[in-house]
Amino acid sequence: MSQIYERVALIGLGLIASSIAHAARRAGVAGEIVGYARSAETRGIAREIELCDRITETMQDAVEGADLVILCVPVGVMGDVAKEIAPHLADGATVSDVGSTKRAVIAAVQPHMPGHIHFIPAHPVAGTEQSGPRSGFETLFDNRWCLLTPLPDTSDAKLETFTQFWRALGSNVDFMDPDHHDLVLAVTSHAPHLIAYTMVGVADDLSRVTDSEVVKYSAAGFRDFTRIAASDPTMWRDVFLTNKDATLEILGRFTEELFALQRAIRTGDGEHLHDYFTRTRAIRRGVIEAGQDTDAPDFGRGGPN
Amino acid sequence: MSQIYERVALIGLGLIASSIAHAARRAGVAGEIVGYARSAETRGIAREIELCDRITETMQDAVEGADLVILCVPVGVMGDVAKEIAPHLADGATVSDVGSTKRAVIAAVQPHMPGHIHFIPAHPVAGTEQSGPRSGFETLFDNRWCLLTPLPDTSDAKLETFTQFWRALGSNVDFMDPDHHDLVLAVTSHAPHLIAYTMVGVADDLSRVTDSEVVKYSAAGFRDFTRIAASDPTMWRDVFLTNKDATLEILGRFTEELFALQRAIRTGDGEHLHDYFTRTRAIRRGVIEAGQDTDAPDFGRGGPN
Repeated sequence: MSQIYERVALIGLGLIASSIAHAARRAGVAGEIVGYARSAETRGIAREIELCDRITETMQDAVEGADLVILCVPVGVMGDVAKEIAPHLADGATVSDVGSTKRAVIAAVQPHMPGHIHFIPAHPVAGTEQSGPRSGFETLFDNRWCLLTPLPDTSDAKLETFTQFWRALGSNVDFMDPDHHDLVLAVTSHAPHLIAYTMVGVADDLSRVTDSEVVKYSAAGFRDFTRIAASDPTMWRDVFLTNKDATLEILGRFTEELFALQRAIRTGDGEHLHDYFTRTRAIRRGVIEAGQDTDAPDFGRGGPN
Repeated sequence: MSQIYERVALIGLGLIASSIAHAARRAGVAGEIVGYARSAETRGIAREIELCDRITETMQDAVEGADLVILCVPVGVMGDVAKEIAPHLADGATVSDVGSTKRAVIAAVQPHMPGHIHFIPAHPVAGTEQSGPRSGFETLFDNRWCLLTPLPDTSDAKLETFTQFWRALGSNVDFMDPDHHDLVLAVTSHAPHLIAYTMVGVADDLSRVTDSEVVKYSAAGFRDFTRIAASDPTMWRDVFLTNKDATLEILGRFTEELFALQRAIRTGDGEHLHDYFTRTRAIRRGVIEAGQDTDAPDFGRGGPN
């Protein structure tokens, strides 16, 4: 793969930024990778593990001369970061982000962008429950989807270049309207996370069942929820606060459906339960056929192979 | 390991029974392993893969002469199976089961057991989303917990022997009161399964988001739910119908908590959300420290190592 950008600046050095650094290096698409994180500790770790070619002490230094700047910070601070870097951006640079919600990020970032800048909002749909500069790895985006929600006046040439960049990191790329993005992700990510957080919180809070029991007998389903509920609290707080409407809509549908199943349990309607549980199997097959999950039983956790 | 039982009969040849067969063979604890399944197709597969030493055409033939009989059928048919095998059980045999609920199984099975039989209810807390005779594997129970809920008049000697059997299969063994078992499992298994089924059902049923979108962007959390929601529909229907009270109690607590978090989202109470999400991380650490899950990010799905 040949170079796509001369200098890529990563603002924020968590799981996604550090994975971008590794994947961009693997692909050879960036002449130089520059990184900045607000926390001195994070910058220190990033230098120690040589995550980027250069770690700067200020945000300004990081973005100067970069032809691609990617904001990899929690959604709630995107606006402040955009405002701070705006005067220092190189002429004609592309600015992007990796936020899990798109309408709020656009509203926060776009007003600060000078006319010469090309802002292309993006969301790589990939991750793990880990966070921080050590958590990234070069294969994170392989065969996952990166959703771009370009604005109406985005230059075709800049968009094409940026699309090539994400493909070079291993991603498939799709384009979507920001509102639709937020609704789709409310279903496939935001609501499931809130539900997992809730279930783990309930288990932690029962007086008649001890935490030790919850932990010991977690292999029967619960442990999958604990993985999701171990995700970064700041990131997820911001996701819910900035995708309020879509998340609440899906949670409303969820509660309605849950009540219907609870009623079926209470009234002993086995047929309703069986039909429902049969239907949901098909979605799993789709996920595996689309290459979005392993088909090894139990995610291959010490399984047959 | 030396032989513990001369002949072990497995009634039903799904995931758990086939894993018992493999693990018992690995441990050399059974002189002979005999299997029976109601479906001719399942019996045919079991013979083809040489799952047991012998597959019988009738339930009666399977249990005759067995000093251990394990009922590995859905909870809803345990009573019928117990009734059918009762007259054919060997004198002094131990009968057990692997049902995910215990109070209902005891109520259904115990009345049919002749006085010379030792009925020891059991629940190996392990599994995958797969089912059928091909899905078993010898390591399924390694370092998982098998919960025994012995009845008040159970013979100490028979209980000790049966405990040794489960330990030989790789399990840790704990003892519990049946009602408490049903409550603990409602938290760690039954409620999480119903919630996962519900979430997958909702996603499948939205008119504004296509199934193809749900599948493509599932890597952001949803795909973990699809694994759980791919579990055997008959088994799970029976679990909910036979652990109604505890499941509904936990779902009630879950809904209460979910409403509180929804309110926090609606009112923009970021502190409440952040505190809640921070607390749930600790439980994940507990699960990993107890050896009940892998610490590889994202369950090791194509991760860094």
